[in-house]
Amino acid sequence: MKSLEEKILQDGKVFPGGVLKVGSFLNHQIDVPFMIEIGKEFYRLFKDEQITKVLTIETSGIAIAVVCAEQFHVPVVFAKKHQTKNLTNDCYVAHIHSYTHGNDYEARVEKQFLNEHDRVLVIDDFLANGAALEGLMEIIRQSGAHLAGCGIAIEKVFQEGGKRIREKGVRVESLAMISEMTDDGKITFVEQDA
Amino acid sequence: MKSLEEKILQDGKVFPGGVLKVGSFLNHQIDVPFMIEIGKEFYRLFKDEQITKVLTIETSGIAIAVVCAEQFHVPVVFAKKHQTKNLTNDCYVAHIHSYTHGNDYEARVEKQFLNEHDRVLVIDDFLANGAALEGLMEIIRQSGAHLAGCGIAIEKVFQEGGKRIREKGVRVESLAMISEMTDDGKITFVEQDA
Repeated sequence: MKSLEEKILQDGKVFPGGVLKVGSFLNHQIDVPFMIEIGKEFYRLFKDEQITKVLTIETSGIAIAVVCAEQFHVPVVFAKKHQTKNLTNDCYVAHIHSYTHGNDYEARVEKQFLNEHDRVLVIDDFLANGAALEGLMEIIRQSGAHLAGCGIAIEKVFQEGGKRIREKGVRVESLAMISEMTDDGKITFVEQDA
Repeated sequence: MKSLEEKILQDGKVFPGGVLKVGSFLNHQIDVPFMIEIGKEFYRLFKDEQITKVLTIETSGIAIAVVCAEQFHVPVVFAKKHQTKNLTNDCYVAHIHSYTHGNDYEARVEKQFLNEHDRVLVIDDFLANGAALEGLMEIIRQSGAHLAGCGIAIEKVFQEGGKRIREKGVRVESLAMISEMTDDGKITFVEQDA
């Protein structure tokens, strides 16, 4: 998606250690009209998959998931990273290691919101090591639902997650695929079809 | 908003201690078409306020904030509850005590995303003790922006937050105002104009 690549080049900031900050439009401030364009692109890619649910994980996947689900006319379910009073104990649970924050956590989805009749599109803002995505896939596996595919805004191709997940036969569509980021701020994308 | 009251009566579940679970449509699974109706209602209420930003706090305010901002054609900014690599140190910071989770945390917004030229609509899913809302108001105060008002989906009127914030002269519009919840599950609303 050329417009996303241009937005990353224009507004993204690279920090040492492979950190790309896109807080001005994606995960702190949210450029809503632009998110809607992203939602429409995921709809174009997955519209034949008879999606019944969009699944994401808190926090920064929620905005994209909502505008995407708006296109499909289906609900969003977001996995929770924290056990709270508002969650029953009757949950699917996946253990996830966060490379970004250097900790482990459990992602939970209440069983009532996902079942074997669902066809699920997983949405997230980033794909790097793939830990969060594999956690969501584990939740889908437990539910018996069908995983129709994964829609990612920005994939860091130089990390291993996307490769590993595609090798499992999962369809992963990333709208911007970064092949290289240098510490002095240069960003290179994988060539994609228009 | 009658449709929200009906949705709460139909799908909400009351748990002892004044806990109302609305995870089937608001803060775990998200009924996106219904959220859009909520966004339109906030637009109707605040459309003359020349809003430039919608401000919320992670996590469960984000979905409503996004569909609301879509109506106003403005960006969302969501305050972060955790210090992460993705956040600069140049932030407005508010200290918040969570009555729900019994802990203290800091909410942060990067200074570049809010300034004295902004007219801010604060959006959240719940208003009870008002701690999160007052944290967002503190962030707006630090930024020099104008607080145009607060749009809340569900207010627990039997707790003190809404009263205290309105007494400061802030316009608070709550779409469903719960005056009483009994442990056996009965929910009573404050009468509102259609």
